[in-house]
Amino acid sequence: MAETTTRYPLGALEAFVVEVLVRHDVTRPDATVVAARMLEADLRGMSGHGIFRLPAYCQRITHGGYNLRPNIRTVRETPVSALVDGDNGFGQLVMTHAAEIAAEKAAEQGLAWVGVRGPNHAGAAGVYASMGLGRDLIGLYLAVGNANHAPPWGGVELLTSTNPIAVAIPTGEQPAVILDMATTVASYGRIKVAAERGETLPEGWMVDRRGAPLTDPTHASEGFLLPIGGYKGYGLGLVIGCLAGVLNGAALGSGVVDFSRDHTTPTNTGQMLLMVRPDLFRPLDEFKADMDARVRELRESTPMEGHPPVRTPGDRHAERVDEMTASGIPLAHETATRLADLAATVGYLDHPFVASPNP
Amino acid sequence: MAETTTRYPLGALEAFVVEVLVRHDVTRPDATVVAARMLEADLRGMSGHGIFRLPAYCQRITHGGYNLRPNIRTVRETPVSALVDGDNGFGQLVMTHAAEIAAEKAAEQGLAWVGVRGPNHAGAAGVYASMGLGRDLIGLYLAVGNANHAPPWGGVELLTSTNPIAVAIPTGEQPAVILDMATTVASYGRIKVAAERGETLPEGWMVDRRGAPLTDPTHASEGFLLPIGGYKGYGLGLVIGCLAGVLNGAALGSGVVDFSRDHTTPTNTGQMLLMVRPDLFRPLDEFKADMDARVRELRESTPMEGHPPVRTPGDRHAERVDEMTASGIPLAHETATRLADLAATVGYLDHPFVASPNP
Repeated sequence: MAETTTRYPLGALEAFVVEVLVRHDVTRPDATVVAARMLEADLRGMSGHGIFRLPAYCQRITHGGYNLRPNIRTVRETPVSALVDGDNGFGQLVMTHAAEIAAEKAAEQGLAWVGVRGPNHAGAAGVYASMGLGRDLIGLYLAVGNANHAPPWGGVELLTSTNPIAVAIPTGEQPAVILDMATTVASYGRIKVAAERGETLPEGWMVDRRGAPLTDPTHASEGFLLPIGGYKGYGLGLVIGCLAGVLNGAALGSGVVDFSRDHTTPTNTGQMLLMVRPDLFRPLDEFKADMDARVRELRESTPMEGHPPVRTPGDRHAERVDEMTASGIPLAHETATRLADLAATVGYLDHPFVASPNP
Repeated sequence: MAETTTRYPLGALEAFVVEVLVRHDVTRPDATVVAARMLEADLRGMSGHGIFRLPAYCQRITHGGYNLRPNIRTVRETPVSALVDGDNGFGQLVMTHAAEIAAEKAAEQGLAWVGVRGPNHAGAAGVYASMGLGRDLIGLYLAVGNANHAPPWGGVELLTSTNPIAVAIPTGEQPAVILDMATTVASYGRIKVAAERGETLPEGWMVDRRGAPLTDPTHASEGFLLPIGGYKGYGLGLVIGCLAGVLNGAALGSGVVDFSRDHTTPTNTGQMLLMVRPDLFRPLDEFKADMDARVRELRESTPMEGHPPVRTPGDRHAERVDEMTASGIPLAHETATRLADLAATVGYLDHPFVASPNP
């Protein structure tokens, strides 16, 4: 189905998010961090976790669901670990703080595991896994999904979620390997974008409560997301939930708050980040050269007949950042309209969405 | 398809493996460790990694593919990490040693990552992830599969494998959560068992080189294993390969030696084990009680109409161990015959397989 998008400059979108958040009583420094993490999601093509989410976040602010002056602090600590209490602040703020601690400890000790309790939805998993790449740190991020959209395998009660895993691994000349995946076939964010764009879902993404395919994303609430590999994806999502949620005293199972429907109860969204210095195991240059060789071998291998070149996870990240930074970030007309409506509620009119993008 | 199995006492099978290995010049202490790890795989129902593999291991010994007097040693080390050189010894020996180091360091520092280079096939992933459970340690095990049975997503060159992940998480009263999964829909071990049993593969496990379903396991070498979730499983398998293989200077991609065809080249099979003490983040009792609550909630949740009760990964492990310890381990007639043939080659006749199990 054709969709109408317009490109907007990255800087303008970032300034827009900051301004809207500040007008919702977020401090400017905090708004700046949240905006940066949100636009990084858009730059990764994870539009379901980018600026698209701003109206939902602001709705939650309006209902008092966020602590806008959180005391984000470390409550348990060793040289190689920390438990950070997010004090019901923005997930982007809490995880940015957690990533700084993880990178600092991993740089010193070689290895660090930072868990989080009491934060909220943090956006795109790959953003956090990648935060140590500039320091040549491997990152592993696990999170509990923000609403239960799936039953356990063979069940019907909504007790599990998309629980994502992201892994970022530095390379030399080749693109870094950056995996960012939900353990369901599709993420709920992707379903929301499909609904907004009027798309039909492929079979295999969702089923209804009797197990029949569900392809109309506007009826998503009547069905379940399907895990990858059936029972395997259910099991993988469960252990991610235990390590990111239960281990930190964060929510899992019936304790998970549906962020999109309940705008007041603290979500206590479990997240964890592990960072590792490759030179614990090999000299860094040697490791990067070997990573390059492995990535190159895959990307240069023969594709199936009629298929495009073989890819590695995250291979287009750098070029997409360059391209979007130069040419702007594409937003669906519907999203732009919702952002303009949101801005109007706080009397903010001098923004990129004032004029209809398709006059 | 009906299959003929006979049950054999655990102790007799373990003694059989030890005796066969000793007659192949493995030292008795080493053979005892290898046998224990192999039978633990059978007790987990991972028969493709259990005693079934003994003929292949012995074939490799006969061709000089193993170092039977390996100098297994730590070559890089910090308080929270180690790189173990397996010196081309049995994978079961090397990983048992690595697990002991990981558990020791994790008990002291809270967290430990041990990588391995230069080992061989180690068997069932869940065995190693679980080795810290008795000390209340969470375990995460990643490994590079022992032969490339899959292309990268959208490609045709055999450059990737089943790269498994296993995670073991302690609980209180409920069964420990023990995930053990290949990142392909089926493991190659499972395909081998199906071939031996004369079974047909379900569609979705393998495709041929043109992408059509491959259901005859005796033609497995003409096709590819499919990753779970398509490109997601490919990506997950790749990052597992980087962390278990490249990071340790072990094989990945074109460097992987097909263990079943090449009996002499050192395989350098990448494996890693991470162990974590839950009390880095929460008091242990509190963590276990919360794990119990989450596991109980899932197991007691409503199943789909006509489906059996909802399960959690590893929930039947303890009862299966009890049952098999009491009633014996079931082996296919074909496997028992191969084991008898193997024993005959080293003049070992006084074993459980002498008499045909179905006279």
